[in-house]
Amino acid sequence: MGGSLAAALRGRQQAHWIIGYDTDAKACLRGVELGLLDASAASPAQAVRDADLVVLATPVGAVPDLLAQIADAIGLATILTDLGSTKADVIAAARHALGPGFERFVAGHPIAGGERPGLEHADPDLFEGCTVVITPAAQTRLEALERIEALWRSCGARIERMQAEEHDRILACVSHLPHVLAFALVAQIAGQPDAQRKLALAGAGFQDFTRIAASSPVMWRDIALANRVALGQELRAFVATLEDVEQALAAGDAQWLEQLFELASRTRRTSTGGAHGQ
Amino acid sequence: MGGSLAAALRGRQQAHWIIGYDTDAKACLRGVELGLLDASAASPAQAVRDADLVVLATPVGAVPDLLAQIADAIGLATILTDLGSTKADVIAAARHALGPGFERFVAGHPIAGGERPGLEHADPDLFEGCTVVITPAAQTRLEALERIEALWRSCGARIERMQAEEHDRILACVSHLPHVLAFALVAQIAGQPDAQRKLALAGAGFQDFTRIAASSPVMWRDIALANRVALGQELRAFVATLEDVEQALAAGDAQWLEQLFELASRTRRTSTGGAHGQ
Repeated sequence: MGGSLAAALRGRQQAHWIIGYDTDAKACLRGVELGLLDASAASPAQAVRDADLVVLATPVGAVPDLLAQIADAIGLATILTDLGSTKADVIAAARHALGPGFERFVAGHPIAGGERPGLEHADPDLFEGCTVVITPAAQTRLEALERIEALWRSCGARIERMQAEEHDRILACVSHLPHVLAFALVAQIAGQPDAQRKLALAGAGFQDFTRIAASSPVMWRDIALANRVALGQELRAFVATLEDVEQALAAGDAQWLEQLFELASRTRRTSTGGAHGQ
Repeated sequence: MGGSLAAALRGRQQAHWIIGYDTDAKACLRGVELGLLDASAASPAQAVRDADLVVLATPVGAVPDLLAQIADAIGLATILTDLGSTKADVIAAARHALGPGFERFVAGHPIAGGERPGLEHADPDLFEGCTVVITPAAQTRLEALERIEALWRSCGARIERMQAEEHDRILACVSHLPHVLAFALVAQIAGQPDAQRKLALAGAGFQDFTRIAASSPVMWRDIALANRVALGQELRAFVATLEDVEQALAAGDAQWLEQLFELASRTRRTSTGGAHGQ
């Protein structure tokens, strides 16, 4: 997603010198070859030196270390943002690492994705029409906030401001839990001795689950742990719903099942939710 | 799916006179207008009189009543089949309703679908490359079995024969459980006071769930109840997996979570499962 943001900013003349850093140095050199990046830095500290804007585009679990590595190299006017799928943990890490610089950190989460990983698949129009949630803290400077929001708007995104805790609670529900369910279901079947025979008879519904479960294990491990309290609550509520389903099945309660299924089925017909994203 | 089979058979000159019956008489008349059907019958019994082949294309819960209505009208050489997503219950119903005619009933389940309902969306190529599971009983006559299998092959499908119980056990796992999970998750969120706010921030993963949950509530109520024993087993196993996830989250067990997610993620990369279906 960092690559797509680089492509979007460059395509819209919003960035005139983009320096990349990746733990995989080859990925960054490839970005230079592709014209997405102007240079590949040897370290995070080198990448951020003299930068007007720093974008953290890593799995959320890597953010604390990364911030520690760049904290001393960041200029006094540098604005920072991130693309992480959880916000309270990222804000806590930024507050801890950046000291007074925390007022120039603007936490963000573009609800986009589903794109293939790797700079080769960077899509300059990925953010067109998508929602970017911005979760400012009390200390966030308004000018930093407005600059980041303007940047996203220039990429075609719609901004939604909310508290980090609300973001994390909502995303636990509509993103993190669905991913965990997909991973758990596919893993459960994959672990059975007759997995191949079963997978060969899987239909469209199951293919959707395997597509969701094809997401990065490391990224989702980090998200699940970073948002473990809210996710744990959603998970427990869902297990309770499944236990109700089990009882209805055992009792042959056709009406209860139909009502549950009907409520879900209606939601598709009335929802105008986002078209894509994590 | 009945409409798509009619379209497929007609397009391949495998049927020269197709009579339809639907509880919604208008649907059948529309089929005649569209050229999918040659005639619309006033009753199930009228539809099957003098038929060489009878195809039951209803939610599985409607099969016992339907069989009772046609049993006396079926000719002594008529072959019957169905398209139901569960097989043991359909076979039991056919055995009960058809008496000696049961030997000409060939239970089948095309693993196709995802198509929009209604005869307007009938797709003559829906079955190209799809798998049709055929679950013969000990009493099934070989000539009836071979005739049905040849019919499906003429529509481009691949045949897989197995026991009804094995079919139901596998489908509980790779189809019925995923659908129940999707219905339950979407219903759980839809039932919350801030559902609209949450749905507006839903990403691609959740959209997959709502698409699955947009399936027919009546059809899936019937499937869930018809296959309640196998589905209940899968559901309990899945709840146990979710409880393990909950524990790993609470314990902050990053390694366990990553291993689970990695197993699921690999499955997508190695699976060559069916492209579509229920």
